[in-house]
Amino acid sequence: MKATLIHATKDIRVEDVPDPRIVLPSDALVRVTASCVCGSDLWPYRGINEVTEPRRIGHEFVGIVEEVGSDVSTLRTGDFVIAPFTYSDNTCPHCRAGVQTACDQGGGYGSPDPAGHLVDGGQGEWVRVPVADGTLVATPEVPDEAMLPSLLALSDVMGTGWHAAVSARVQRGQTVVVVGDGAVGLCGVLAAARMGADRIVAMSRHTPRQEVARAFGATDVIAERGAEGVAAVLELTDGVGADAVLECVGTGESMQQAFDSLRPGGFVGYVGVPHDVDVPIGQMFGKNLNIAGGIAPVRAYLEQLRDDVLDGQLDPGKVFDLTLPLEQVADGYAAMDERRAIKVMLRP
Amino acid sequence: MKATLIHATKDIRVEDVPDPRIVLPSDALVRVTASCVCGSDLWPYRGINEVTEPRRIGHEFVGIVEEVGSDVSTLRTGDFVIAPFTYSDNTCPHCRAGVQTACDQGGGYGSPDPAGHLVDGGQGEWVRVPVADGTLVATPEVPDEAMLPSLLALSDVMGTGWHAAVSARVQRGQTVVVVGDGAVGLCGVLAAARMGADRIVAMSRHTPRQEVARAFGATDVIAERGAEGVAAVLELTDGVGADAVLECVGTGESMQQAFDSLRPGGFVGYVGVPHDVDVPIGQMFGKNLNIAGGIAPVRAYLEQLRDDVLDGQLDPGKVFDLTLPLEQVADGYAAMDERRAIKVMLRP
Repeated sequence: MKATLIHATKDIRVEDVPDPRIVLPSDALVRVTASCVCGSDLWPYRGINEVTEPRRIGHEFVGIVEEVGSDVSTLRTGDFVIAPFTYSDNTCPHCRAGVQTACDQGGGYGSPDPAGHLVDGGQGEWVRVPVADGTLVATPEVPDEAMLPSLLALSDVMGTGWHAAVSARVQRGQTVVVVGDGAVGLCGVLAAARMGADRIVAMSRHTPRQEVARAFGATDVIAERGAEGVAAVLELTDGVGADAVLECVGTGESMQQAFDSLRPGGFVGYVGVPHDVDVPIGQMFGKNLNIAGGIAPVRAYLEQLRDDVLDGQLDPGKVFDLTLPLEQVADGYAAMDERRAIKVMLRP
Repeated sequence: MKATLIHATKDIRVEDVPDPRIVLPSDALVRVTASCVCGSDLWPYRGINEVTEPRRIGHEFVGIVEEVGSDVSTLRTGDFVIAPFTYSDNTCPHCRAGVQTACDQGGGYGSPDPAGHLVDGGQGEWVRVPVADGTLVATPEVPDEAMLPSLLALSDVMGTGWHAAVSARVQRGQTVVVVGDGAVGLCGVLAAARMGADRIVAMSRHTPRQEVARAFGATDVIAERGAEGVAAVLELTDGVGADAVLECVGTGESMQQAFDSLRPGGFVGYVGVPHDVDVPIGQMFGKNLNIAGGIAPVRAYLEQLRDDVLDGQLDPGKVFDLTLPLEQVADGYAAMDERRAIKVMLRP
């Protein structure tokens, strides 16, 4: 089959790799209908995370179950499934507590599973999915093409934006600031709107992203960053600050901006992988600023978000503004790296 | 009147100072019935926080209202009142959100109020209390002597331990670890018990404090610290970790121990003033470890805790194991500094 490998900084290739097969009885084989490129894939692409040897990449996909292992009981051949960006058994104490990203048997795509067998990356034609019963969430029917983008968004960005909003304890009627206008930040806007926030402030200086943010429910857009962005938020809130801030970037600057925008007692919900972040504990202590979040347990939210998408309540698919055949995946990385695209869908 | 001043490291004196009087129409004059020494008073006492000039000290007291300003409407002469350790108007946006420590008109005892008039420290005979309607909470009657310790504990340590438990989202049935066996940590044990925690693990290696912890509801006591203490918690929890950890010390070591003891998705509720704390954001991200808390808005909990004390549901007064006349306040500091006393009550 064809699959994507990252070889080095800005070196993304589609190559022939062995077809996956059922290895463990809890596995399922999924033929990928659509996958995509994640903002976190850009960290190694940009050389910020080192690539020491060629490896599979991609962790967001939807597809059709083509074969299941003998222990798989909830899925059958022909099911359309959404794969959360980590696999998990959904039965261990951490899964039962809703933190499937900490699953005792869990892991990520593109590297070996706990038993040592490679798990394919998502940016390819097929994926062997471990602990499939716990991991994959099926739709009642194979959906229309038109539904694909929104269902694919549930594999990561929508669940991650949702986690930011859950972690920030977004409540009906609140004022919510979203730092970061990538696909996750935009999905954070959508999550806050779905949760009933009154005022949603998107921090963005890119017109196409501002437009998606407004379509997703942003009531205000602030183009300024840093201290100027904070001042604009304080002006909007009569000097009080936002009830909740969703931090969807992961840099030291964005995190500080998030804290500075928050009212006393508020929560930063953060989901961007932290890079060079110093948490300002002294400032937090004096103002009771709080921080919650982390790698999003997308699986915990997947049934609810699937139903919301199928019912027409959520349409996160708008984050995809470029679709490419898998063979052109390198162009997709370049487009996201250069901010020519918000998020790229790949069709094998 | 007599009042306590700190002159320098380990230099605590009782001196004659001007009698306070009503300065602003929202003031009340309180004759102190009992006050106490706080763990945070030990930071300047030990020279960790610099003392640049002699200043009033003490921020926990209960007493009798002897005079009120013309704008005070909810208090009258003769009322027995509990003073939270900061004053606040209880009407500004931050107070209404339950973060009275961030009050627009608020401040601390022993230094000037926003109008520039000195507010007396709590370790004295009298205190001028600003924004008295918002700050002071009265009891229905002047309580018996026997109730004094538990009501005095509400001015800081019980409300602070309560805030740790609220911030850590302690729920019925959970396993809660309390790091710190000072008066605040012990009150954290009591708070977790009152909130219905199933298992409460007190980290303590001092027999008298272990005894108070058990009396307050601790089901387990772990004497080890650091990595050994964490290992003991993991053993108690089948390797999962605690649902919630109350961090009641404020050092880098205690904070790291708190995070290491936590299960994925859990909350550290912290109330110790952070000194040399690095928040481990990378570890937090991967395991969805969260942190909430800060300087406790004791005022937010005061009515509820007062009623609990008066109803016999809470008896935090057990933290006081030494009572001294105000003249011997220096001995009280020394006793707490040398860990000969958990908490010292002062009677003017």
